[in-house]
Order: sequence, then C-alpha cells, then structure tokens
Amino acid sequence: MEIGIIGAGSIGLLYSFYLSKNYTVTLYTNRKEQADIINEEGITVIKDGTQSLTKVHAEYERNYQEQLLIISVKQYDIEPIIEVLKKLSSRTVLFLQNGMGHLPFLSLLSHHKIVLGIVEHGALRIDVHTVEHTGIGRTKLSYYNSKNSDNTWIEQLLVEKHPCFPIELKEDWQKMLNEKLIANATINPLTTILKVKNGELIENEHFNVLLYELFTEVINVLGLQNERQLWDYVQNICKNTAQNESSMYKDIQKGNQTEIDAILGYCLHQAKNRNLAMPHITFLYHSIKGIEVRKGERDG
Amino acid sequence: MEIGIIGAGSIGLLYSFYLSKNYTVTLYTNRKEQADIINEEGITVIKDGTQSLTKVHAEYERNYQEQLLIISVKQYDIEPIIEVLKKLSSRTVLFLQNGMGHLPFLSLLSHHKIVLGIVEHGALRIDVHTVEHTGIGRTKLSYYNSKNSDNTWIEQLLVEKHPCFPIELKEDWQKMLNEKLIANATINPLTTILKVKNGELIENEHFNVLLYELFTEVINVLGLQNERQLWDYVQNICKNTAQNESSMYKDIQKGNQTEIDAILGYCLHQAKNRNLAMPHITFLYHSIKGIEVRKGERDG
Repeated sequence: MEIGIIGAGSIGLLYSFYLSKNYTVTLYTNRKEQADIINEEGITVIKDGTQSLTKVHAEYERNYQEQLLIISVKQYDIEPIIEVLKKLSSRTVLFLQNGMGHLPFLSLLSHHKIVLGIVEHGALRIDVHTVEHTGIGRTKLSYYNSKNSDNTWIEQLLVEKHPCFPIELKEDWQKMLNEKLIANATINPLTTILKVKNGELIENEHFNVLLYELFTEVINVLGLQNERQLWDYVQNICKNTAQNESSMYKDIQKGNQTEIDAILGYCLHQAKNRNLAMPHITFLYHSIKGIEVRKGERDG
Repeated sequence: MEIGIIGAGSIGLLYSFYLSKNYTVTLYTNRKEQADIINEEGITVIKDGTQSLTKVHAEYERNYQEQLLIISVKQYDIEPIIEVLKKLSSRTVLFLQNGMGHLPFLSLLSHHKIVLGIVEHGALRIDVHTVEHTGIGRTKLSYYNSKNSDNTWIEQLLVEKHPCFPIELKEDWQKMLNEKLIANATINPLTTILKVKNGELIENEHFNVLLYELFTEVINVLGLQNERQLWDYVQNICKNTAQNESSMYKDIQKGNQTEIDAILGYCLHQAKNRNLAMPHITFLYHSIKGIEVRKGERDG
C-alpha cells in the first residue's frame, strides 16, 4: 500500500516514521530543503531518550498518486490543500487536524472516501527531520461519508498493531471530534494563558475552577449531555499528560500561529445564533488572538 | 508638623522623600536593617535618570508619636496596623491603600480623623532605600469621617505644591476610591495575566475588547452609572502609563503576593448577594490566585 502524507510538522514526521515500517510512504513537504534533508538523512524519532532512524521518501513536487492521503497540516493551512483535493481523482483521504476548521470544506470533497482522525500522541518537532515522541497515545479514526463501506486502506491500517502507535476505529465521528475539541478548547487555551503544564490544571485548585468553568461553557455550546463522563475525560488527559506543554502553549512560545480559530473560534461560531453566554470562551479567544497579533507585530 | 509614615515600600519611600522637604518625617520600617540603612544613607529617588538624596529619619521601634500618620503598607499587611491604630490616641490617619480591603476596618477607628487617599504616581522600589519615580501623578485625599472639619494637618499638606508631587482634596471619597478601584480592577489583572505593559490594553484591539468587557462587569458590580466618563478615565490611564508595568504585574514577576483580594476579591464580595454575572472577574480572580499559590509552592 502506498500512502501520501501531506504536511511535515511533528505529526507528519511521526506518522511517516511509524507507517514507513509497513507501507511505502511519501511525505510531502512545504519546502524543498526539508524534502532534500529527509531524503538524505531519513526521519529520526526520539523516544525516552533513544533515537531511531527510518528512511522515508519525501517529495516537494506534488504528484499525489497515492490511494491513501493523510492530511497532517495545521488547521490554518488546510484551505490550499482542499483546493488540490477537489481536483484529485477519487481516493481515501484521512484528515488529522485538531479542531473543527476543516469540516465545512468536506462537502466539496464528496467524490473521495473521507476519514476523520484524531491524534492523541505527544509529539515535539526538534528539527526538519527529527521529532520527539513525548507521549504514546492513540490514533482514532472514523468514516465520515462512507460509514458501512469496506475501506481496504483503512482496514489495513487497523490491522497493524505497533505498540507505540495504536490505531482504533470509532463509530461516531461527531462524538470523537467533540471529545477531542472539548480537550483542545479547555486545556490548550488555559495552559497557554496561564503558562503552565497540563497537569497544573488539576493540581492547582484555582486553575481547576477555571478548567471546570470553561468546560461547562464548552459542552453547553456543543450541546453535549454526558457532562460527568466528559469531565472525567478532560481531567484524565491533564493527568496523563501532566508534564506536557499543550500544542497551543508551545506554538505561542515559539511565536507561531495557534489553532485558536479552529478551536475556540469554532465554539464561538457554533453559538452565534443561539444567544448563549460564553464569557470564558470569548475572553480566552481574544486573549490568544491578542497575543498572536502582538508576537506578529514584534517579529514583523 | 511631624508626620509618621508606616510602610517603607515604594510608596512609603516616595512619600518620605517628598514630604521630608517640608516636614519632620519618621518612616517606620518592618525590618531593623532597612531602618539602619535609611538612617545611614538617606532615601534616594531616581527621576528621569537623575538621582536625588534626602536624609530621612527611620524607626523600627514603633512609637507613633506623630499627629499625622500615613499608612502606606500593602492591603494584605493592613490588619496588624489596624490593631495598633485602635489603641493609639486620637489623631489624623491617612490611608493610601490600593483597593477597598481597608474600608471594613475603619469603623473600629472612629476616634481618629480618617482621611482616605489614592496614589497615582508610578513608583518602583530599586532597593531598601531607593525608589524610582517612574510617573508623576497626583495624590488625591478625601475626608472619611470628618467631612466639614478643618483638619489643619491635611490643610497644610494641600498648601505645599511640589511640581512632582501634587496633592488634591476630593469631595466624595466613595467616588474617588471607586474610580481608582475600576482602574485597578481592570488594568492590573489584565496586564498581569497577559504579561503586557499598560499601553497594550488600548493599542491591541483584542486586549481592548477584554478591557472593555471587564470594565462593564466592574462598573455593574459597583453600581456606577457614568460609564462613558469612567471608560475614558480607564483608557486615559492606559495611555498615560503606556510604558509602565502595573503594580500587580510587577508583584507577580517578583513572586510577591498581589493585592487581588482587595481589588477583584472586593468586587466579588460586593456582588455576592446580588446574583450578578461576573465571569471575567471570577476568571481573573482565580487566575491570579492560582499563579500566587503556584509561585508560593515553588519558592516554599
């Protein structure tokens, strides 16, 4: 099976590394230099201080011949990829974005078999061909527009069981994405604004109050019922990733753009016509946007 | 006229320096070493890069013989001072605290002539006997329990017109403190959590949204009507102190306790039985408290 992975950030590198063990992977990069370095030096994954190297084929020229394309670009880079996918012949496309920003575009891609995925791994890009696997999580997949189809590409992925790289199939993509969104919409902006690791949101009683207040707003906006279960889910993520800095916090530290629009921006948009009070979501949205603008001005 | 100043932080040092020019000032310190250093080396004020030195008498032993006592300790240090003042013979006591935390105690001090003051100076303590006068503001005074009395001590203070140290009398102490509280309750916690200078709250459009949202909550809690005028007031402070870091932001950077309880804690308490929505006040209160707890644990 040939797999094309589009986007060579931390997640793209991580998936290229693990999937290369059993498949022919082509990693599509955004810059020619990165493709050259990967072709020459391979991809290195660091886990528990140990380095492993795998040869991966990288491409800067976009041929996209593969029957399975995995889209691992950041939310704010999704639009040009959608334009390309619109014109490609029918195949399986797996989206791995955080947040919900890609969902409105999916109706434009109905000739493809769309699969949605969420990534629970901790991954930190060290350089253009090196990624640290900071936390083993799961990849959860769910069929978006082909619920009962036998998708041989996805079936194959599910059969492989690498102990550091488990992949699961979920019935309900909406539930799956909502759970991930709740975690992203609470843990990410709070750790970013407070400048703390994930664990402090449960260890510090004041921060835990904030987490709960924000959580209740988010599940209210998303119209979710099973509050008790979801609250346990969010708290467990904080516990299991206690020593990690959230991706948004890392983005802000590096002066990168965050995925705030696809996360809290999506929540605000969802509630737009429903007259819901969302003071914490609004507050955090503007805080993070303001910090982004500020960094942009300072750098620019 | 003999003046006793209790509390030798930035404000205590600044007032000792300027008032020493015309009065006999005794500055009461919390630690003997600080009194010794001030008695030996005087108080230095740095303004626009120029240092000026004045001899000031400092005391660690608390005699409190002076007929005018100026209380310039932080809000959270006020309670032991109140205990002392309860037992002192009748005199004029001027409180210069930020926030409202001292007001509940004033009924215990009705044998004194109480004067309330607010400080608009920017002052940064460099070391135990040196303070930088970072912004020239006004001192506003208002009689608390002796509205129409001729208070000769205060009258004298008002006569002196040092160009860097103007002192004004205000009719309505409640209005005066409310205005100061609004500024403190909005600019201080926002600059602290966002880690920005005061000016950014008006220069950054996202931060300005946050400032306005918080402002409307605060004036609602305090039951104030003249929104337009007060909003101009808050924005003007940001403009005039654009390059300054707020006292709360500085406290957090130094790992000191903040005055959050006397500021947002007071707002929360005011609204307790009135069923008002105060999401931003609540959010910022818990954020700052959590950061305080966190620093305390790390240092302790």
